Amino acid sequence: MTITTDFQVLNPPQRLLMGPGPINADPRVLRAMSAQLIGQYDPAMTGFMNETMARYREVFKTKNQWTMLIDGTSRAGIEAMLVSMLRPGDKVLVPIMGRFGHLLAEIAERAKAEVHTIEVPWGEVFKPEQIETAIKKIKPRVLAMVQGDTSTTMNQPLEHIGDICEANDVLFYCDATASVVGNHLPVDKWKIDAVSIGLQKCLGGPSGSAPITLSDKCADWIKQRKKVEAGIRTVDHVQGIEPFVRSNYFDLGMIMDYWGEERLNHHTEATSMLYCASECARIVIEEGVDQAVARHQLHGGAMLAGVQALGLKVFGDISNKMNNVVAVYIPDEVDGDTVRNQMLLDFGIEIGTSFGPLHGQVWRIGTMGYNARKDAVLQTLSCLDMCLHANGYKGPKGEAALAALAYYK
Amino acid sequence: MTITTDFQVLNPPQRLLMGPGPINADPRVLRAMSAQLIGQYDPAMTGFMNETMARYREVFKTKNQWTMLIDGTSRAGIEAMLVSMLRPGDKVLVPIMGRFGHLLAEIAERAKAEVHTIEVPWGEVFKPEQIETAIKKIKPRVLAMVQGDTSTTMNQPLEHIGDICEANDVLFYCDATASVVGNHLPVDKWKIDAVSIGLQKCLGGPSGSAPITLSDKCADWIKQRKKVEAGIRTVDHVQGIEPFVRSNYFDLGMIMDYWGEERLNHHTEATSMLYCASECARIVIEEGVDQAVARHQLHGGAMLAGVQALGLKVFGDISNKMNNVVAVYIPDEVDGDTVRNQMLLDFGIEIGTSFGPLHGQVWRIGTMGYNARKDAVLQTLSCLDMCLHANGYKGPKGEAALAALAYYK
Repeated sequence: MTITTDFQVLNPPQRLLMGPGPINADPRVLRAMSAQLIGQYDPAMTGFMNETMARYREVFKTKNQWTMLIDGTSRAGIEAMLVSMLRPGDKVLVPIMGRFGHLLAEIAERAKAEVHTIEVPWGEVFKPEQIETAIKKIKPRVLAMVQGDTSTTMNQPLEHIGDICEANDVLFYCDATASVVGNHLPVDKWKIDAVSIGLQKCLGGPSGSAPITLSDKCADWIKQRKKVEAGIRTVDHVQGIEPFVRSNYFDLGMIMDYWGEERLNHHTEATSMLYCASECARIVIEEGVDQAVARHQLHGGAMLAGVQALGLKVFGDISNKMNNVVAVYIPDEVDGDTVRNQMLLDFGIEIGTSFGPLHGQVWRIGTMGYNARKDAVLQTLSCLDMCLHANGYKGPKGEAALAALAYYK
Repeated sequence: MTITTDFQVLNPPQRLLMGPGPINADPRVLRAMSAQLIGQYDPAMTGFMNETMARYREVFKTKNQWTMLIDGTSRAGIEAMLVSMLRPGDKVLVPIMGRFGHLLAEIAERAKAEVHTIEVPWGEVFKPEQIETAIKKIKPRVLAMVQGDTSTTMNQPLEHIGDICEANDVLFYCDATASVVGNHLPVDKWKIDAVSIGLQKCLGGPSGSAPITLSDKCADWIKQRKKVEAGIRTVDHVQGIEPFVRSNYFDLGMIMDYWGEERLNHHTEATSMLYCASECARIVIEEGVDQAVARHQLHGGAMLAGVQALGLKVFGDISNKMNNVVAVYIPDEVDGDTVRNQMLLDFGIEIGTSFGPLHGQVWRIGTMGYNARKDAVLQTLSCLDMCLHANGYKGPKGEAALAALAYYK
């Protein structure tokens, strides 16, 4: 075995990330991750865990005790929720309005739930009556839906769904990875039983930690499936009465024991990501959750005004668009990949491509988290304007950034 | 909802972490995590992913193409391996020599495998003949075992196990989280089909990323279970012919597609943890893998000499101890928790408690990763010596650090 010694420290190029996420991390978040480690059961560490729980209660606007982190990406948070809430054979209703609805259905199917889906075309959202009708017909244990689906940029209105679930004795789970902090999500007020998110969108952090929150009702249900693993189980441990969760890593019953008073060993907490997640929340709380949403609304509005002035047609129902991302049709006369690559490699600005039925049809442009800023919006619009025209675009020239400036005024 | 604004940046106290891990991260690793993010499909990012694969091939001493990261803690790596390798009903043999053997059995059981275990008392390791006899009797599809089990400090010799597995057509999976880089693990030479590790031991990083490597034979088997998820599946995607993996997040077939040439979207890579994992490997490669093992042997030997001079009785079969951790019986005349707490809170040094049958019986003291250093060893021994004597210890006084100094000479 030859040991090569020419490996260098990774040196990422400077990029302004204006796609649908991940976006640039807030420098304060990056600094937080460079703090030195402490032990798992150091009182300082368990104090940090409690503090992180408190911070995410603020972000979620909830009093839920079980507000904590899953050590993985936002997709890990989704899987932890679904495999812990759903027994094999349990009915789950998944309203699908884009790619991430399909993901929820897929994960629930793998967990052997009986998956029922309803769909609206990409670019639309569900009306509460559609959800209610399906719930009354299917009588699911769980309603699992996405708030903001970046694949379509739509933001599903949720304010009436919790009442429908409560009236029909359905647990309401929502993945709000793409929408949280950029759009309103008062978890208790809207009666959402379970929410999972990630850091890499409007929270201004990297992917790799998934904050979640569970209502007491949901946590009590999950505890009935708890299985304390051999090797640390004692005679005092009460095992659940329902079929246990088929994942160890995602067994929320055990994860609650780890974050709770017993501090029962489960995984080894990803300390740097905890510092990171905690700092993401701190920054949002310092600004104010409502103020952060308003900021996303402001800069998302400026971006929308800019791309419209540039002559680009916006995809989907604008009245239900997330504040933090917009999709625009790629003009016929330009090659989408060429423009996107030149934006990245010459201008240093990343805009997003798309999936599924929208593949090759639209670009997705984000204004989220640390990049929901005036300078980021103006740089992106100015450069996209120039880059389009460098590639044969026939629409308006030199108007995009000026329209955004006018919007700000 | 009252928004509180008195949350401060987390400010971890200075600790020297000399337990069984996590330990202090190498400062270069912490700096690597503070690098700014880039997009998931930026050519720089896919280049970093390829480079990270190459680096871990060096760490594992393997040519395995499928050498990559699982985005979660080392436990996530274990679960990804077991749920992807084992179909429901498949036989798996798990030799258990400590807590983490129980964990492998537990995770395999949750995956509905037919789990067979053999055990040796804590503090011992298996002889190859014991493994061979059990394999011939049980005829498992997979042998799953731990190399270094921190719960007992033992390092299972593995050099003959690969041949036994090959002769009996068994896939050989090993969790080497605690032992890798502190003890030899030439994956190809020892014919190990699948290895998962973590960063938080001898690699000198934080928990939160799990490097893995798969032989072609193992990868080919796993690909037969591949299921490409709805929402990104196209007509060109070949689905596997075997029952698909019941986890989406841990489906190694999909994770290979993400790290491979197709770059098929799965999770959003945890970029900061990738920077981190990559830097951990770079540092080891710069030192040399064999040199890193020798360093752990040197400082682990000095620690052993020191605790023996302190009059502490060492737990288990010393000839099979991991280089990077030692367990010592807590002297009768002192209270274990009092000493450990004073070491932490007054001296700023963390030593480890223990699990299961050793709970309250032994302390575990590590010399691993960034802390496999002379100054860390001498500080720990000097302080433990004083702390014991401050708490009524009746053994030798003022000898521990001097014995280690003598060992270094």
